Amino acid sequence: MSNISIAIHGGAGTILPSSLTPELERAYKARLQEALDAGYHALKNGKTAIDAVEASVAALEDCPLFNAGKGSVFTSEGTHEMDASIMDGASLNAGAVSSITGVKNPIQLSRLVMEHSDHVFLTGKGAEDFARHMKCEFEEQDYFFDELRHQQWLSVKGTDKFQLDHSSLADKKFGTVGAVALDQHGNVAAATSTGGMTNKKYGRVGDSPMIGAGNYANNATCAVSCTGSGEYFIRAVVAYDVACLIEHKGLTLQEACKEVIQNRLIKIGGDGGLIAVDTSGNISLEFNTEGMYRGRRNAQGLNEVAIFS
Amino acid sequence: MSNISIAIHGGAGTILPSSLTPELERAYKARLQEALDAGYHALKNGKTAIDAVEASVAALEDCPLFNAGKGSVFTSEGTHEMDASIMDGASLNAGAVSSITGVKNPIQLSRLVMEHSDHVFLTGKGAEDFARHMKCEFEEQDYFFDELRHQQWLSVKGTDKFQLDHSSLADKKFGTVGAVALDQHGNVAAATSTGGMTNKKYGRVGDSPMIGAGNYANNATCAVSCTGSGEYFIRAVVAYDVACLIEHKGLTLQEACKEVIQNRLIKIGGDGGLIAVDTSGNISLEFNTEGMYRGRRNAQGLNEVAIFS
Repeated sequence: MSNISIAIHGGAGTILPSSLTPELERAYKARLQEALDAGYHALKNGKTAIDAVEASVAALEDCPLFNAGKGSVFTSEGTHEMDASIMDGASLNAGAVSSITGVKNPIQLSRLVMEHSDHVFLTGKGAEDFARHMKCEFEEQDYFFDELRHQQWLSVKGTDKFQLDHSSLADKKFGTVGAVALDQHGNVAAATSTGGMTNKKYGRVGDSPMIGAGNYANNATCAVSCTGSGEYFIRAVVAYDVACLIEHKGLTLQEACKEVIQNRLIKIGGDGGLIAVDTSGNISLEFNTEGMYRGRRNAQGLNEVAIFS
Repeated sequence: MSNISIAIHGGAGTILPSSLTPELERAYKARLQEALDAGYHALKNGKTAIDAVEASVAALEDCPLFNAGKGSVFTSEGTHEMDASIMDGASLNAGAVSSITGVKNPIQLSRLVMEHSDHVFLTGKGAEDFARHMKCEFEEQDYFFDELRHQQWLSVKGTDKFQLDHSSLADKKFGTVGAVALDQHGNVAAATSTGGMTNKKYGRVGDSPMIGAGNYANNATCAVSCTGSGEYFIRAVVAYDVACLIEHKGLTLQEACKEVIQNRLIKIGGDGGLIAVDTSGNISLEFNTEGMYRGRRNAQGLNEVAIFS
């Protein structure tokens, strides 16, 4: 178990010390640490990387501070539409859902799609029917209600404006959560979940449920979870791009993550970040924005959460 | 204009001479030629690669023989849910839609998403709302009705069986259409469209609308449109995999397509095929199944359609 490693993120963007009160900063860090520990303890207890990334992402989904699960932002119709995906680096199996409403933990549903359906990607009402068939936990709409998110939505409701962020009108942040992990068995996995963009309409789907774009895992290369301007992450196939630079060019995990986020993605105008691990236990947390809610922990004693760059 | 090139496909699978009557074979070839010519004439008239792939795919969508647009198969609920995507290799702009009903030409809607929305991927009712907002052409359900498809659906209706194919119960075929092109300006583009799987349920989405999986275009490498066992194409990020082998390993277009379809995809159990072009006018039509409805044409006089291997 010497190499067990986990990293998490809670979104990236224009996150400056001035935009958080000391109380809020402490609250974010405390919840990041809890989510990090949830996955780490799973790994320490011999559970799989899939178990660990699911545990960490579910913890972030259950926290109203992050834009996923309970903390999901409002769509243009005042509802909450969530996307998520998960991938197992040992088997290359994957599961993803998009545009689902009412499911308490979209990451758990993604895993059920991966393990109990013939498919990789289910969307909308069909995905919700599958969730009911699998006895997934649902919550009423008031569970997803948050006064701050509601105020953010009311300020842009009825306009064509949408927000990539869940937190402040003045800021530009990408509300997504994710986790990547290496387990005692030498397998990696990745999980990503989001509540999308405030006031989004037309059934917009970002990169989070897209295997290869917002999420990817392969023992041969790495596990990656992204957060950022989703449209750019889709067009740049960001998560698989990192894996290909490792496989074909022989870059290290850190070199590949840096090349993709600080060069290739910026060239097409994309901003955001990603977290990644490989089977050697290397961890990379790379972003080209002012901040990224993040954390990392391993068996060598590394254990930290951070927000600003 | 010496290099203008176009290739199309109408799906791959267990397509044997014994499974087609001479009349049906002639009909398939005639419609493939029409679709090929629609795109080729656009290129010859100086239109863009995007114009050409849209024209060819729209022609295939309008033909009931192919599982896309008018010829879309039935879902488990007796409806037609279609997916499509388009990508411009010059700008890396892309548009995609999934799980839409009633839109006559999903490929046209994909292009509208690319050119007139802030997003890449719209799904379900929201995508249909955007289509109405853009004054897209809609058709009533009877437009999509086909007696053969209906019989195929009735034979599996109410069961958990689903069919990857649109054509014969005994065969295994992947009903998707696509086009890739190089225009006079030296730009490539790719377009893909599908009606999914007969009796599909739970809002299943395959690789066709996934940028990087079923569709990808980049002047720096190639344009690719896929058809096959969608879940495997998603997990293998097939279209972008071809591009990465060209970019990072220096493989030729033909070498890269062969490596992905005949080796990397087969290793994880996937079957199907793809079509690809690059900015030098090379064309590749690669598949690991018994047949693929396909065609290719260029300014050097190459002009052929084929079905079997």
